[in-house]
Amino acid sequence: MEIGIGLFGLGTVGSGVVKILQQNANQITQRTGSHLVVRHAVVHNLNKPRTGFTQDFPITDNPEDILSNDDIQIVVEVMGGVDYAYDIIKRALMAKKHVVTANKDLIASRGQELAELANQNGVDLYYEAAVAGGVPILRTLSSSFTADEISRVAGIINGTSNFILTQMAANGLTYAEALKLAQDKGFAESDPTNDVEGFDAAYKLIILSNFSFGVQPVMDDVTVTGIANLTDSDINDAHGFGYAIKLLGVAQRVGDALSIEVAPHLVSFNHPLATVNNENNAVLVNGESVGEVMLYGPGAGEMPTANSVLSDLTNVATNLALNTPGRPFNTFNQDLDLAKPSQRVARRFIVVEVADTPGAMYSVTGMFASAKISFTDLKQTPAKNGFARLVALTHAASDAQLNVIRTTIRNADGINLAAEYKIFS
Amino acid sequence: MEIGIGLFGLGTVGSGVVKILQQNANQITQRTGSHLVVRHAVVHNLNKPRTGFTQDFPITDNPEDILSNDDIQIVVEVMGGVDYAYDIIKRALMAKKHVVTANKDLIASRGQELAELANQNGVDLYYEAAVAGGVPILRTLSSSFTADEISRVAGIINGTSNFILTQMAANGLTYAEALKLAQDKGFAESDPTNDVEGFDAAYKLIILSNFSFGVQPVMDDVTVTGIANLTDSDINDAHGFGYAIKLLGVAQRVGDALSIEVAPHLVSFNHPLATVNNENNAVLVNGESVGEVMLYGPGAGEMPTANSVLSDLTNVATNLALNTPGRPFNTFNQDLDLAKPSQRVARRFIVVEVADTPGAMYSVTGMFASAKISFTDLKQTPAKNGFARLVALTHAASDAQLNVIRTTIRNADGINLAAEYKIFS
Repeated sequence: MEIGIGLFGLGTVGSGVVKILQQNANQITQRTGSHLVVRHAVVHNLNKPRTGFTQDFPITDNPEDILSNDDIQIVVEVMGGVDYAYDIIKRALMAKKHVVTANKDLIASRGQELAELANQNGVDLYYEAAVAGGVPILRTLSSSFTADEISRVAGIINGTSNFILTQMAANGLTYAEALKLAQDKGFAESDPTNDVEGFDAAYKLIILSNFSFGVQPVMDDVTVTGIANLTDSDINDAHGFGYAIKLLGVAQRVGDALSIEVAPHLVSFNHPLATVNNENNAVLVNGESVGEVMLYGPGAGEMPTANSVLSDLTNVATNLALNTPGRPFNTFNQDLDLAKPSQRVARRFIVVEVADTPGAMYSVTGMFASAKISFTDLKQTPAKNGFARLVALTHAASDAQLNVIRTTIRNADGINLAAEYKIFS
Repeated sequence: MEIGIGLFGLGTVGSGVVKILQQNANQITQRTGSHLVVRHAVVHNLNKPRTGFTQDFPITDNPEDILSNDDIQIVVEVMGGVDYAYDIIKRALMAKKHVVTANKDLIASRGQELAELANQNGVDLYYEAAVAGGVPILRTLSSSFTADEISRVAGIINGTSNFILTQMAANGLTYAEALKLAQDKGFAESDPTNDVEGFDAAYKLIILSNFSFGVQPVMDDVTVTGIANLTDSDINDAHGFGYAIKLLGVAQRVGDALSIEVAPHLVSFNHPLATVNNENNAVLVNGESVGEVMLYGPGAGEMPTANSVLSDLTNVATNLALNTPGRPFNTFNQDLDLAKPSQRVARRFIVVEVADTPGAMYSVTGMFASAKISFTDLKQTPAKNGFARLVALTHAASDAQLNVIRTTIRNADGINLAAEYKIFS
């Protein structure tokens, strides 16, 4: 059987998809029973040079060339952006074409609506490449942990910020130097906000929460803290206590509720997540039955991401051969409340800068005692600019308790909360 | 739809399967659309006490009670052993019952024959639990890397030996002490041969090779070296050079051929495989497109292994709902030659004990020069019992070159090849 593919977008990922389809054509046909052929590509800019594959299909800038083409059964959307991509995918689904997309922003914000549309039209909507690049986490969640009760999904799911943190830790760069290096290497965009402020990770965490807990959170449900305020001192102090600092997306059950947060976390050097370096990604899944499982791999890049698109394409091909398309990618649906600040409990890494005056430390420790937060480890380093740096690891404390401390410190003179991160365990 | 399950074996894994089916019944029904019910269990010993689940099904010792029961659609074989299990599975498939098994020995040795029988009878044969316990590696290989060309699959796939090596490295135990600890903790059997000599890993590597390369190797095709001769000195010396020693199963393409080997390897501390400790397992997959991906998790245990059985059961349930059973678990078939010793090339860790006499070291270095093996790192430690210990890391050398060295050393006086392991990279 020959299956026609229409590509929206022929940039990095799109080119990678064409390359794999051409180079591994025989293997794909042998294993799926179908011959997957690119029949058309639609792009924004017709004049861009495109290399690395044989262009045996027309390239135009008119969406109708794909959407109205009866020889195209699968639409691959790898342009990015939300509004235009939404429009294209909606029209493709309504034209009863299967859709494969790598668009995390779109799936995180309007995925449920599109999944329902796919279902109504009896077609597939897959998006493995939307989360963690080449790491096949979504299909694993949907086909291998169906019978298990997942208690937590946590991941290093933004390669740019992980590259920056790795460079700061391994090579002693400042945040600004590491960001510059990431930009020079093409890992960070000239406006890095989406990556370093945690929004990109938050989109992916929303999708992971769909699959792991059956919930449909919106961006406002996610507590997001980026890495832009992290200093090399924070990283060094964390190291001294045996921890790496990683930007983690963490969704976890607390009682009947769900906490969804993107923030820098301290991760013990003994934990597998601590060894995930540079632009790599990893997703850790804790299940009641399976225990702790981690999937690790390249979080981005032309060929790894294209391979995830290809896994979607071969799954559509199998469904077509069996005449079974139209099943949702994610079959899990349930309602869970959002966790309250009092339910979000963890050990903490806290850095306080205190004016180096008599009684200052007494006053600080009094604030923590009032909030009922107690320390397990303390380290004070000599005063700088008239301030002392106090680094503390605490016993378990809730976000509600931390909010008390924040307010108290904000209203006090000569003391500043320089950093506050959860310890992942 | 209600789907009846018949269990052969109600030991550790069997009990875990019943527990998950009972505890997560609602979730499983919601996500698969089917109600999975244990209708019968057949065991060897009727008198063993069985706890942890509600026994709402008969337990007998007559296989016919399952095989001739028309209300049972899926047979779960979790007894172990080869001949009897083969007979049971064969009869189940011929009775057009789907089969889920955790039996790696059986699948590695007669899996192809059983897969053909399943195909002829239009039923499913799944065995995710046969490799790496709770780690969902087989389904990932079959559904996410179908379009990629895999160049290597390598794994820590025997929890017992990894536990022993971890204890030797982390706590300075001797091999004998670590083995004793593993036995005390229930990680090793009283006769540990199968685990520590590498045969268990070899069975799993055969199955990984089926899925990764489409080949059907037999045990004789696998070069197997266990850990029983590893000493704490080897581990300490490897550490000094920045490496852990891990028992790896490695199947990799070399040109048009395939090398399949289970042996202790040196793994750099920077590599994710080096952080896989104690009874955990991990499988690393290198694909032309995807790059390097690793799946990590518990390699054994009641609930993780049961969760893998459950993932097979929910996949059968989905196939039944869609009326699409009978597709092979592994769709990949190709012929590859076995790699020759001259094609199996790697850097090496070599330990030679040399009589502490004038000219001895000159003679040793001459042997390596003759075999065209050159060193990158050398360390000699003071003589003990009149012998010096020479530890060398080499440039890349083939198994053929190493065979020359082995023969030369065997025929020489006052020199002994104490250890020789590949460096994994």
